[in-house]
Amino acid sequence: MTEDLLRTLFEQVRTGAVDIDAALARVRHLPFEDLGFAKLDHHRALRHGLPEVVFALGKTPDQVVQIACRLLSAAPNVLITRADAQTACQVREKLPAAEHFPLSGAIRFWGDKTLHGKGKIAVVCAGTSDIPVDEEAQVTAEVMGNEVEVIYDIGVAGIHRLMSNRERLTEARVIVVCAGMEGALPSAIGGLVSCPVIAVPTSVGYGASFHGLAALLGMLNSCASNVTVVNIDNGFGAGYVASLINRL
Amino acid sequence: MTEDLLRTLFEQVRTGAVDIDAALARVRHLPFEDLGFAKLDHHRALRHGLPEVVFALGKTPDQVVQIACRLLSAAPNVLITRADAQTACQVREKLPAAEHFPLSGAIRFWGDKTLHGKGKIAVVCAGTSDIPVDEEAQVTAEVMGNEVEVIYDIGVAGIHRLMSNRERLTEARVIVVCAGMEGALPSAIGGLVSCPVIAVPTSVGYGASFHGLAALLGMLNSCASNVTVVNIDNGFGAGYVASLINRL
Amino acid sequence: MTEDLLRTLFEQVRTGAVDIDAALARVRHLPFEDLGFAKLDHHRALRHGLPEVVFALGKTPDQVVQIACRLLSAAPNVLITRADAQTACQVREKLPAAEHFPLSGAIRFWGDKTLHGKGKIAVVCAGTSDIPVDEEAQVTAEVMGNEVEVIYDIGVAGIHRLMSNRERLTEARVIVVCAGMEGALPSAIGGLVSCPVIAVPTSVGYGASFHGLAALLGMLNSCASNVTVVNIDNGFGAGYVASLINRL
Amino acid sequence: MTEDLLRTLFEQVRTGAVDIDAALARVRHLPFEDLGFAKLDHHRALRHGLPEVVFALGKTPDQVVQIACRLLSAAPNVLITRADAQTACQVREKLPAAEHFPLSGAIRFWGDKTLHGKGKIAVVCAGTSDIPVDEEAQVTAEVMGNEVEVIYDIGVAGIHRLMSNRERLTEARVIVVCAGMEGALPSAIGGLVSCPVIAVPTSVGYGASFHGLAALLGMLNSCASNVTVVNIDNGFGAGYVASLINRL
Amino acid sequence: MTEDLLRTLFEQVRTGAVDIDAALARVRHLPFEDLGFAKLDHHRALRHGLPEVVFALGKTPDQVVQIACRLLSAAPNVLITRADAQTACQVREKLPAAEHFPLSGAIRFWGDKTLHGKGKIAVVCAGTSDIPVDEEAQVTAEVMGNEVEVIYDIGVAGIHRLMSNRERLTEARVIVVCAGMEGALPSAIGGLVSCPVIAVPTSVGYGASFHGLAALLGMLNSCASNVTVVNIDNGFGAGYVASLINRL
Amino acid sequence: MTEDLLRTLFEQVRTGAVDIDAALARVRHLPFEDLGFAKLDHHRALRHGLPEVVFALGKTPDQVVQIACRLLSAAPNVLITRADAQTACQVREKLPAAEHFPLSGAIRFWGDKTLHGKGKIAVVCAGTSDIPVDEEAQVTAEVMGNEVEVIYDIGVAGIHRLMSNRERLTEARVIVVCAGMEGALPSAIGGLVSCPVIAVPTSVGYGASFHGLAALLGMLNSCASNVTVVNIDNGFGAGYVASLINRL
Amino acid sequence: MTEDLLRTLFEQVRTGAVDIDAALARVRHLPFEDLGFAKLDHHRALRHGLPEVVFALGKTPDQVVQIACRLLSAAPNVLITRADAQTACQVREKLPAAEHFPLSGAIRFWGDKTLHGKGKIAVVCAGTSDIPVDEEAQVTAEVMGNEVEVIYDIGVAGIHRLMSNRERLTEARVIVVCAGMEGALPSAIGGLVSCPVIAVPTSVGYGASFHGLAALLGMLNSCASNVTVVNIDNGFGAGYVASLINRL
Amino acid sequence: MTEDLLRTLFEQVRTGAVDIDAALARVRHLPFEDLGFAKLDHHRALRHGLPEVVFALGKTPDQVVQIACRLLSAAPNVLITRADAQTACQVREKLPAAEHFPLSGAIRFWGDKTLHGKGKIAVVCAGTSDIPVDEEAQVTAEVMGNEVEVIYDIGVAGIHRLMSNRERLTEARVIVVCAGMEGALPSAIGGLVSCPVIAVPTSVGYGASFHGLAALLGMLNSCASNVTVVNIDNGFGAGYVASLINRL
Repeated sequence: MTEDLLRTLFEQVRTGAVDIDAALARVRHLPFEDLGFAKLDHHRALRHGLPEVVFALGKTPDQVVQIACRLLSAAPNVLITRADAQTACQVREKLPAAEHFPLSGAIRFWGDKTLHGKGKIAVVCAGTSDIPVDEEAQVTAEVMGNEVEVIYDIGVAGIHRLMSNRERLTEARVIVVCAGMEGALPSAIGGLVSCPVIAVPTSVGYGASFHGLAALLGMLNSCASNVTVVNIDNGFGAGYVASLINRL
Repeated sequence: MTEDLLRTLFEQVRTGAVDIDAALARVRHLPFEDLGFAKLDHHRALRHGLPEVVFALGKTPDQVVQIACRLLSAAPNVLITRADAQTACQVREKLPAAEHFPLSGAIRFWGDKTLHGKGKIAVVCAGTSDIPVDEEAQVTAEVMGNEVEVIYDIGVAGIHRLMSNRERLTEARVIVVCAGMEGALPSAIGGLVSCPVIAVPTSVGYGASFHGLAALLGMLNSCASNVTVVNIDNGFGAGYVASLINRL
Repeated sequence: MTEDLLRTLFEQVRTGAVDIDAALARVRHLPFEDLGFAKLDHHRALRHGLPEVVFALGKTPDQVVQIACRLLSAAPNVLITRADAQTACQVREKLPAAEHFPLSGAIRFWGDKTLHGKGKIAVVCAGTSDIPVDEEAQVTAEVMGNEVEVIYDIGVAGIHRLMSNRERLTEARVIVVCAGMEGALPSAIGGLVSCPVIAVPTSVGYGASFHGLAALLGMLNSCASNVTVVNIDNGFGAGYVASLINRL
Repeated sequence: MTEDLLRTLFEQVRTGAVDIDAALARVRHLPFEDLGFAKLDHHRALRHGLPEVVFALGKTPDQVVQIACRLLSAAPNVLITRADAQTACQVREKLPAAEHFPLSGAIRFWGDKTLHGKGKIAVVCAGTSDIPVDEEAQVTAEVMGNEVEVIYDIGVAGIHRLMSNRERLTEARVIVVCAGMEGALPSAIGGLVSCPVIAVPTSVGYGASFHGLAALLGMLNSCASNVTVVNIDNGFGAGYVASLINRL
Repeated sequence: MTEDLLRTLFEQVRTGAVDIDAALARVRHLPFEDLGFAKLDHHRALRHGLPEVVFALGKTPDQVVQIACRLLSAAPNVLITRADAQTACQVREKLPAAEHFPLSGAIRFWGDKTLHGKGKIAVVCAGTSDIPVDEEAQVTAEVMGNEVEVIYDIGVAGIHRLMSNRERLTEARVIVVCAGMEGALPSAIGGLVSCPVIAVPTSVGYGASFHGLAALLGMLNSCASNVTVVNIDNGFGAGYVASLINRL
Repeated sequence: MTEDLLRTLFEQVRTGAVDIDAALARVRHLPFEDLGFAKLDHHRALRHGLPEVVFALGKTPDQVVQIACRLLSAAPNVLITRADAQTACQVREKLPAAEHFPLSGAIRFWGDKTLHGKGKIAVVCAGTSDIPVDEEAQVTAEVMGNEVEVIYDIGVAGIHRLMSNRERLTEARVIVVCAGMEGALPSAIGGLVSCPVIAVPTSVGYGASFHGLAALLGMLNSCASNVTVVNIDNGFGAGYVASLINRL
Repeated sequence: MTEDLLRTLFEQVRTGAVDIDAALARVRHLPFEDLGFAKLDHHRALRHGLPEVVFALGKTPDQVVQIACRLLSAAPNVLITRADAQTACQVREKLPAAEHFPLSGAIRFWGDKTLHGKGKIAVVCAGTSDIPVDEEAQVTAEVMGNEVEVIYDIGVAGIHRLMSNRERLTEARVIVVCAGMEGALPSAIGGLVSCPVIAVPTSVGYGASFHGLAALLGMLNSCASNVTVVNIDNGFGAGYVASLINRL
Repeated sequence: MTEDLLRTLFEQVRTGAVDIDAALARVRHLPFEDLGFAKLDHHRALRHGLPEVVFALGKTPDQVVQIACRLLSAAPNVLITRADAQTACQVREKLPAAEHFPLSGAIRFWGDKTLHGKGKIAVVCAGTSDIPVDEEAQVTAEVMGNEVEVIYDIGVAGIHRLMSNRERLTEARVIVVCAGMEGALPSAIGGLVSCPVIAVPTSVGYGASFHGLAALLGMLNSCASNVTVVNIDNGFGAGYVASLINRL
């Protein structure tokens, strides 16, 4: 249910076409549809003005397909994240409009490509191995209606690579930075720009990286004041918040 | 050095009032002044368009006073965070314009009260014991030029307290949420609103709160997609990023 | 050996039908039968008035089948938890009365369906991915003789889903709440109801969820006073304690 | 506002002594009073049928006194936990009815000593050093209207001490067990009794006890199925849940 | 080279049958043979009076076979621990005297079955799933020349099972106790007996057992004073030290 | 009650001087005396043949004095560990026979100096800062009736210091090794000797020693097979187990 | 681009063979080539005077092959680390000059075997299972132009093995020491020699080795002052820094 | 005992002025002098060619003074680290040549100021609060005979401050970098220079810095290959190794 549909309902109430009890019932019963194993929350789109998202990890392929079908009946843009190969296969069979991104496991239905963001979002990663997380952020920001500038492989151990991208970075309205290992890139970028930086620690590394813990702690302790942090490998969350900020 | 001063310099260059070498020298030598123990970074204000900040923890009272004096000679608004009682005392003696906030240890010089934020920032805390962190966020957002709405003590174990503040929350353009113990409030608020939520875990709690670790992990794993996180007790960082977002 | 059998024995002793030495021998030798690799504890049923349970993880399929056979010779209701596919297969072959629950790995023998609980137990989960743990709690509570109300997918990021189930929650005599990620649902439900809430952290999540640690710490730090916690993914333990409470 | 007061209000509405708007206003405005720094939640007592509790840690003495006064104007029984010496002193000065328990920092106002619990609650500790946590549980259970049986110093390294208290343990309807170091006592007691056991890890110990972490992990992994766990040193929470269970 | 051989050498020196330089050379060159990838330490047997041991984890099957062959040429008793299926297969092919214990991965060459221990070693485990670790301790203690009493499945949640084995426990000269989950059994046994207890935490459990960490911490914090601890799942180490103690 | 007293009692029963009921009563009532806050366990001495020990940490000075008095009425040797200055002062005032060891906080009553150990116990430390823990082990082993050889400051970074003490080490029947920082000394000593080595990690160090965790983990992973471990700073436990072993 | 090529360029500029703009362009455009997914940093070789290195973990085989080809067009020596079997296979097919080291996953192109190191680098490991990490260090140091002395299996539990290699150790100019489990070898070697020791913790071990954490902490807390540490299993890093030091 | 003295001794042996037994005795007895609580290791100076160092933490003021006196009788340069105020006071009273550095607690006796290092050592810190650790590194490197270049406050969030010091950094032969919070500076510097970089994590920070753990993990995971790491706050170790490298 979009805001338009809701407005229509209110007008029908005003004109008497729908009486108040019926209207209340519709609104009250609409917030979520019950599929038994999942409550679909169509109000969420209304509340946030953003597409619906399905987190596929821990759900069976069947559950993901069912949820996706139901959501697509109500919204033009739907994003599935963390789908494994089997789920992706089943989704694409049933729903041929699906774009599949195998590195990150994202699946995108992008029916409505209207731009909502006011500026560019830069999505940056420190090394080639961080690209899957970067991709999730990029796919998310795009389906949310943003122009996205992608910059790969500019880690702090080669500062001139970072400096030579300085201009592209300063043009962004908000920046997503994905980095594993020591996770130092958000601090370095944070010091170069004056916009909000959303840091995504990645699980790239080995040994004392402890599956992303080192990068996470590094980013939480950033000496650059414009940095906030999301969960390890949470490219989606970073792309989502960046989209919210870019709409302001 | 503000952007205005820089523009003036460029114009002087164009008109020939200042030759290029002299101009370059002024810009090159300005980025940071050297106090021996600290490099003051006057460009930072230029880069971010925001006041200067001194993190007092681990600095001697003398160092803090010296840095503050130097910064105040170049900027109307200066914020000192985490000052202990002795430092606060010494600062206020030397610099009577100082406002002191003893709960959080913040000291504020607020010479220029122009509003830069486009909307309201809500600064919320879950419990009475989280107020010191909340205060740091509030003081920061105010000195950065924002209208701030403060809401105390609306933790998730009393959902009706949260629900009765729903309207005030939805009016905010960005929300800072401070919570200790299980750190669940940002998720609950994140689900109610559609703006960015900046979560600040606090070290409030005991036992398995592990000095804020429980709240930090909870917030990083938030099931609400519009939540990003800063360091434990980092009210300043949250207020700072909220200010950046509110200027967009 | 049920309490009834024991009472009969004591009466036989009183009437002289069984002499004291013989009686002592029967009681002394009954506490546990020795299968070599496991000591079956038939007294436990007597002590707790509850069915026997086999924890299959780390046992071979053969061991599980042998233990189950022996237990079923003494008790109508037996529960096997955490059985892998191979064990489940072998159990069902030998013991066709077995009900198998593949999501959680539970296998149930439910010969005696008498209700022992005085009220309803609500078994709630925050998201679709938590259902396996929920199922273990539900299967346990049922085989222990309880009416169970199952509510899926009412996480805190969509508070209206929680609020719309408020009535069903307040009708329960004890509530089991399974949640992964930030584990905030027990606090929110704990604040809505006045009955005991048993919180089960699940290993659902990724990155800084650290396999359920984030949810565990969140629940241990709950600001709702009516919450106690069991091990990560321990749906069985939660269903078991809820059953004990519901018999009081 | 107790349930009785609420019933009276409804009856006044039925008889017309209070009109509906006025009644609604009273109920709507009552949920919490705003003291500025804390929202007092008088509905909570109504919801849970239990006295009000103030967690003093992190609040100033003044704040605690103000909250206590306000709560006492609405309820005969109030419990303050974790009050330091200065707070206790100030509370006792202003509110002479206060009972102070210096080991645990609890302060109790016990105006209404009606028994609500249906049986006895046993509050047990493993060693002499665990007594402060035990005391908090005992004080809580008593002010909630329960008969409490206290058993000290029966740790697992002296099993005969445990066995010689077996009868007292089996008479309890619910048991609170406080233990530090390896935290093994709840498992041993859990195996002896058939009622719910609430385990409280204490921070007693040194070295690899890691301030109660060892005991906490031990209790979460208890091989006794009737054990649930609360936060380290959370005697209050254990006493509170035990009281809820004992009312069933 | 056994102590006997060494004594012979010294006597040959005294009688002049071997001159001093030759004797020195033999002793000096014997300490370890170099296989390139491993230094075999034949002196170790001499120093400790105990058989040689090969830790197979992380070695290739070929390396294990080569080391075992070389050791067997100098000693009648050799123990291989943690051999995977492929290594076990290859060893048994080349060295048919090998006894293979698939639960623990131990392989034993037991040419000399002389008893060296002065009393019995009890090897105890808390649950059926701990048997593999127990087996490693048993196999080790046996090959070191000890009479071993094995007792399975007497965890603390069923104290009567423990008590009914009390006599067998008090007869032992040293006791090895393997336990996972909360690891409470060594404390309980330690309180019952007056001999040294060697505790082996096992990785049995799930969730907050953190792969044996909970049991390890529990055992390190044991309130029984006669308990020492070895690494998680280190049945070999426990059996080895128990053998050293039993020879005293 | 010592074993001798118990034997006397049994003989009195045999001769009829004490009837069976009286004898049973004496034994049954003796196991522990109840001081209210602590159950004194006089059977423990009987069971272990060793003096009584009071762990003073977390007990009030009054409690320690009371327990010590009661224990001294039944046993010639009593050891108090971890007494702070105030407790030590009060104990010495009331009980002038007390020997006080301020480095470790041990207080010793050593009425009966019979030697029970069959050989020497070596108590070794890696550095000067580990001496307090060493002292606790030494005091314990002495009061338990052992000849103790103390060797200070022979850490692995100066292997020649270790080697020059090799003879003294090989003469010991059991060795206690206290080491902080990387905790490597037990491995090095374990490789030099063939007797049991009890390793005590100490909290000596800073930074990544994490209060003894580094030493603890190092010792648990020792590549020397004759090493077992006790809790961080637990000199008492090491001295106690060493005494048990030295009596065998 | 090697330093020689750069010098040539400068000389061409001086002689006028290349004009300044062209020279600048070449230098400016050379720093990194963009392959889309990775920025190849040809300046790095210039800056460090050392071969290029590709970290294969997390890169696809195709990406590794492409990067290696591009690098080999500019440098005679290239090292690939952490290549899995499939990547190694594809690299060797495309680039037959590749030497493959299957234990460590290293692939080496060693076109220029000039010695740059001034002395010998010793690469030592504590046990046979540490050899893969040792190999990575050795391969790295060799391709960087060093004479390498490899010493296997001289762990601290057999100090005489260490002592008998003392001479070879003291001849080295810098020593790399790889050790898992308790990680004590660097301290012992550090105390024997006066050159810098680079410690590499390995993930060899089980249980409380926590995948190398125990060894890492041990090495960080080394009581030998000449020890620095790299990441767990980072043989490459150790070999690289040793090479830098050996060039000084 | 310096190498010269040792050579003299050997010559006396060759000429017969000292017989072999006497020579052996002198060498054997010299390695360490026994002060009872500490073994002074005069050979260490011989082995490393470097001054003696006393780690004062955990030693009594008296012990430190005694050790220092003894060491000064044999060596011109002695360094005491981590002395608290009381120790410093007592040392300076007894030994007026002491230079005291109150920020770091270092005390230096610098009798022989010969330069041994071949180039400059740069000692760098990220922020003003890291200066105490920096000072310890500087004092150490100086007393070991090095020219030291100190650079303060050039953290990564202000990359231009770093870049403007680039020249001074590239002139160093080895660099010590101290940084707290996210610990990113060593990576950034490591990428700029081609010499070895020794990273010192500091405990500067709060919340999720976990007393230096975040910086430590960041540095261990550095993507710059020329970085090795020492313990948190271990400025001494870094200065020491830097000195060893600078002598090569």
